[in-house]
Amino acid sequence: MSARRMLVVGAHSADFVWRAAGAIAKHTAAGGEAVVLALSYGERGESGELWKDPNQTVENVKRLRHAEAERAAAAVGARLETFDLGDYPLRIRDEDVDRLAALMREYAPHVVLTHPDRDPFNPDHPVAHTMVATARQLTAGAGVSSGFRTAPPSEFLVFEPHQPELCGFVPTVFVDITDVMLAKQEAMASMGAQGYLREYYTQRADQRGNHARRVTGDATIRQAEAFQRLIPNVVGAL
Amino acid sequence: MSARRMLVVGAHSADFVWRAAGAIAKHTAAGGEAVVLALSYGERGESGELWKDPNQTVENVKRLRHAEAERAAAAVGARLETFDLGDYPLRIRDEDVDRLAALMREYAPHVVLTHPDRDPFNPDHPVAHTMVATARQLTAGAGVSSGFRTAPPSEFLVFEPHQPELCGFVPTVFVDITDVMLAKQEAMASMGAQGYLREYYTQRADQRGNHARRVTGDATIRQAEAFQRLIPNVVGAL
Amino acid sequence: MSARRMLVVGAHSADFVWRAAGAIAKHTAAGGEAVVLALSYGERGESGELWKDPNQTVENVKRLRHAEAERAAAAVGARLETFDLGDYPLRIRDEDVDRLAALMREYAPHVVLTHPDRDPFNPDHPVAHTMVATARQLTAGAGVSSGFRTAPPSEFLVFEPHQPELCGFVPTVFVDITDVMLAKQEAMASMGAQGYLREYYTQRADQRGNHARRVTGDATIRQAEAFQRLIPNVVGAL
Amino acid sequence: MSARRMLVVGAHSADFVWRAAGAIAKHTAAGGEAVVLALSYGERGESGELWKDPNQTVENVKRLRHAEAERAAAAVGARLETFDLGDYPLRIRDEDVDRLAALMREYAPHVVLTHPDRDPFNPDHPVAHTMVATARQLTAGAGVSSGFRTAPPSEFLVFEPHQPELCGFVPTVFVDITDVMLAKQEAMASMGAQGYLREYYTQRADQRGNHARRVTGDATIRQAEAFQRLIPNVVGAL
Amino acid sequence: MSARRMLVVGAHSADFVWRAAGAIAKHTAAGGEAVVLALSYGERGESGELWKDPNQTVENVKRLRHAEAERAAAAVGARLETFDLGDYPLRIRDEDVDRLAALMREYAPHVVLTHPDRDPFNPDHPVAHTMVATARQLTAGAGVSSGFRTAPPSEFLVFEPHQPELCGFVPTVFVDITDVMLAKQEAMASMGAQGYLREYYTQRADQRGNHARRVTGDATIRQAEAFQRLIPNVVGAL
Amino acid sequence: MSARRMLVVGAHSADFVWRAAGAIAKHTAAGGEAVVLALSYGERGESGELWKDPNQTVENVKRLRHAEAERAAAAVGARLETFDLGDYPLRIRDEDVDRLAALMREYAPHVVLTHPDRDPFNPDHPVAHTMVATARQLTAGAGVSSGFRTAPPSEFLVFEPHQPELCGFVPTVFVDITDVMLAKQEAMASMGAQGYLREYYTQRADQRGNHARRVTGDATIRQAEAFQRLIPNVVGAL
Repeated sequence: MSARRMLVVGAHSADFVWRAAGAIAKHTAAGGEAVVLALSYGERGESGELWKDPNQTVENVKRLRHAEAERAAAAVGARLETFDLGDYPLRIRDEDVDRLAALMREYAPHVVLTHPDRDPFNPDHPVAHTMVATARQLTAGAGVSSGFRTAPPSEFLVFEPHQPELCGFVPTVFVDITDVMLAKQEAMASMGAQGYLREYYTQRADQRGNHARRVTGDATIRQAEAFQRLIPNVVGAL
Repeated sequence: MSARRMLVVGAHSADFVWRAAGAIAKHTAAGGEAVVLALSYGERGESGELWKDPNQTVENVKRLRHAEAERAAAAVGARLETFDLGDYPLRIRDEDVDRLAALMREYAPHVVLTHPDRDPFNPDHPVAHTMVATARQLTAGAGVSSGFRTAPPSEFLVFEPHQPELCGFVPTVFVDITDVMLAKQEAMASMGAQGYLREYYTQRADQRGNHARRVTGDATIRQAEAFQRLIPNVVGAL
Repeated sequence: MSARRMLVVGAHSADFVWRAAGAIAKHTAAGGEAVVLALSYGERGESGELWKDPNQTVENVKRLRHAEAERAAAAVGARLETFDLGDYPLRIRDEDVDRLAALMREYAPHVVLTHPDRDPFNPDHPVAHTMVATARQLTAGAGVSSGFRTAPPSEFLVFEPHQPELCGFVPTVFVDITDVMLAKQEAMASMGAQGYLREYYTQRADQRGNHARRVTGDATIRQAEAFQRLIPNVVGAL
Repeated sequence: MSARRMLVVGAHSADFVWRAAGAIAKHTAAGGEAVVLALSYGERGESGELWKDPNQTVENVKRLRHAEAERAAAAVGARLETFDLGDYPLRIRDEDVDRLAALMREYAPHVVLTHPDRDPFNPDHPVAHTMVATARQLTAGAGVSSGFRTAPPSEFLVFEPHQPELCGFVPTVFVDITDVMLAKQEAMASMGAQGYLREYYTQRADQRGNHARRVTGDATIRQAEAFQRLIPNVVGAL
Repeated sequence: MSARRMLVVGAHSADFVWRAAGAIAKHTAAGGEAVVLALSYGERGESGELWKDPNQTVENVKRLRHAEAERAAAAVGARLETFDLGDYPLRIRDEDVDRLAALMREYAPHVVLTHPDRDPFNPDHPVAHTMVATARQLTAGAGVSSGFRTAPPSEFLVFEPHQPELCGFVPTVFVDITDVMLAKQEAMASMGAQGYLREYYTQRADQRGNHARRVTGDATIRQAEAFQRLIPNVVGAL
Repeated sequence: MSARRMLVVGAHSADFVWRAAGAIAKHTAAGGEAVVLALSYGERGESGELWKDPNQTVENVKRLRHAEAERAAAAVGARLETFDLGDYPLRIRDEDVDRLAALMREYAPHVVLTHPDRDPFNPDHPVAHTMVATARQLTAGAGVSSGFRTAPPSEFLVFEPHQPELCGFVPTVFVDITDVMLAKQEAMASMGAQGYLREYYTQRADQRGNHARRVTGDATIRQAEAFQRLIPNVVGAL
């Protein structure tokens, strides 16, 4: 039987680390495959530290960010893909959507993760959401026979944004990441350009761990990540 | 290891049949235990057929409704409990909430199902919801050490109401009930007093089956039931 | 054929005037019957002018408010009923709900109007809403044969509160009251105790008239009242 | 006096059949005119059956879908218009919006029906909604004198999507289609390419009929269609 | 210390007058600076009076509207900027967003006001909102060091639309404009082309004044304007 | 001029510490007065540590919790009041609401803080909210002259619950508590019975501080608390 495939799409190359590295690590630890797709390198909006070097160039920033993201992906067992579409602003053309749909038809992910559709603090995150949602629909077809190649409908979830309430984010799933927290920390450590976020997301994992303990009464949960499922899931029993 | 325990609470003795009989049957077929609690017999609001007999009495209606519900519960492998609190209106006193909380502490269910908190067509359903939600919170405590006996927090879902959009119901889980549909039909057939609803809920199971197929691409799903989870679920991997 | 019957329930004796006098006048002008039910006289919360008389008594305030409300009701062709349940706070017992349900079964209204279910500026309005919504459900039964007397389900709308956005009020129906605006003004003039609201609600009628013109392009509409329908309406054609 | 005009806009040529054929038939039976506009033929996303023929061509699929839609429109007394903009994805340019606005100014519909603005299962439906909503606004102008030709503001409703709760659809109007159900069935029978949906939407009409009976207490209603009004309607009396 | 800077962006040259002239006047009266940016002149959608002159030209309408808006801006102490992007429809290209972002980086406003993101009665207002929201995000950067010039994040509010409930507008701030009401009236009087709105918005200011009195108990408030804050405000104490 | 008065109402004696101690300290540091009202001591639900002593009694738990809360209140300059209404469940009678309204009329707070109206994890918090909201409305009257003593309407905000998104909490105000963080820590340290929450809420203050920095660009903010305003605030300028 083939492995379960996960596709994680971030607007910038570091997004998957803060928001989903734990869930990716759990997925790959359980034998699943994971592809992380970075739509841009965040070379303008999220690489300010690198730009403090007066001789810095866009190409070099991208190169460094690529290497960081690759190390972080490796730390959680995922493979990195990049579209290099630019950031701040990320602007998507029809052919970019088609390219993502083609990737989805080829990879046929069982589960897709991306940003929520609203974020008053980041112009690129909702653009990425719309791109992923549209490509996913084009991939699956209308639920009836189609006149083009399709892949089965994937599960579709959004990961936690930086200020969740202001993005309309309401968690519906907590993933217990206690036993892969070291891998997430290693992934976070790889992102030199945004090192200051590392403490923030370590705290966040602790707090979501507290929430998950509260929901279950299971005291062994120490860290968790929060996700919101956009499509009902289908189960054999409750 | 002990079996997984499900508690299904309906305002009236027939509610669990139309809305959750399939999920109960799947649960018990998988080795779980299930208790169905009827807060009332629906003896006033939902037993009009029985009242066409000019010699009918309240006690006899309750007796007949109890027997029907017991047969229906048996058809899906559940045990029936009744509180006989009256219907149209169902009015709850503090001691009724305490009685339910005591039952929950004793039974310690892993999953609890009941009505949504809003229903413009039924005055008793939201009352039942509030009673269950409160008793469940009193059972679990505050997530910290308590000065009273508690049971672990249960999963908490609401089942599908008759006019879902007008009750604010948005499905988050579809249970595939294809292989227990006969048991659900048997349970529905037990409810002589409301036989006219049988066709309606057979169609509904087909339609939710269609939705679940559309979500998954899995053509083997023929019937489903829809539920809305009120509390995030905690999982080991997506 | 019998006339179409409207029931308008206000927490205080003046509520129907500001919020629905135009719609009542249109209804009775078209041959309909209307009953206005005041749950209280607003004798504490909305009769401050009368209390400036140092010899004022509660009984006298109620008497004066009753007379005013009767004149206002007459101005729009309605009959006044009163429950005298007290205000600020209006507190409802089970027997009050039953009394209203009995009135509804007797009167069998085709359409029921009352306050929205939320109002951060008035503690009595949501209480009135809940009472009406519950009594209405008890009146109609469960849509199946019942073991008690019922009346057919009525249309159910809420009228405009004082600060609509903060009460979650979203208009779904505008009633053109242009040709009964004089009757509404006469009704408002009857409410001596709250004369200062007259200008406010005259302006409001103009503004809703502007909105209704904008919606239809019909320049003959000068004044309107806004309502929100809580239950879908059933029509023969769009 | 001229007939009341209805415009129904679907992303694909079959959409109007499942979602609004009954309301169209009622409208035309009452002496109204109806135009059905298909933005695409659904030739890629919803014509899979036709593509099983190895010699199939896009032009032939469109030709067959056109003929089917024309028969279905005729069955409910409507005239078919087509824009042939392509599907999966339907992508709209500014000139397509202008073309629709021109059609609206010319036809001056009293009521416009289209898809809701959200649909996690179909990428083309929200695109169609946005196109219709924008064109409708451009047609009506700003409610003040304009520097261009306008038509009066139309009533604006959305029809029921396939999974209503997941599209944010909340019905506000049920149209009783009992006496035109045969015409709707004939329209559905015309759509050879999607025959498997016929049973689904026959059940759906029964279920909405049940809801409409529940709302009114009128036992003569057997089938209905559900719609959500996006703009308040203006009435002479409640 | 430099003055506090306000930027008000309207889709059409008259929008700021009806919706925010009072708040602008208060701001400048308190020593602040204000720039009003008109994305278009409303030359097609909101200048119908001018088009009654059979010799009218687009260029002349724009010239007249520019002069009016300049007088109105002056009346409240603001400076007018115009982008002349066309109206009905207002269509925005990427370079228009970049132009606005450049203006924002240069002007570095402390507070930005514009239209809400939804308006079923005006196709241009939501377009303006999206443009402003995006440009504002591009101006501020990601809250981390950026590879491009930024300005500090501004406060961000939307002003009141014509039919607030139907635009999802919920006021969170009332600005007491009592002592600048004359300036607002002068600004409104400057807008010859839309003189008929003057009475409407005078009434509206009275009504919002009533609401603000009700919220505070402060009887000195006579007129107010309503705004909705989209981003939390940060304060030193409550 | 008299000091600005703040009233903070918690269901249990420790609630104000975790959720509002910083805002209270800022308020009193600015010369304001603050009263903290504990509706119960949390003696059953939140004092589990104390109950580990086999000789523990309810009266002793209350005595210890009273002393702790008094120390915590003192640490932030507030005075403690207690109603001792019991917890798990907190059940409110009409006379309890009247008692709180009497306190509010006497104290005449300018600002009132309490729990949100929804909390799936705590049965007592929404009960406290409803009690406070009702008492506040009874205190202020109807915005017109009343037949009873009133106090001016207060500002009304809710503080942050433990799992904000699941309580419908959306922050609208961040209070910068950087310079009183030590006082908040001292208040937290006073609550021996719930010491394990101290680290959680220290992290939370850091995270809200991060959010407040992001909103303002002000790097001096280190810690913050989040609140949601339920009633618009009225200001002299933006």
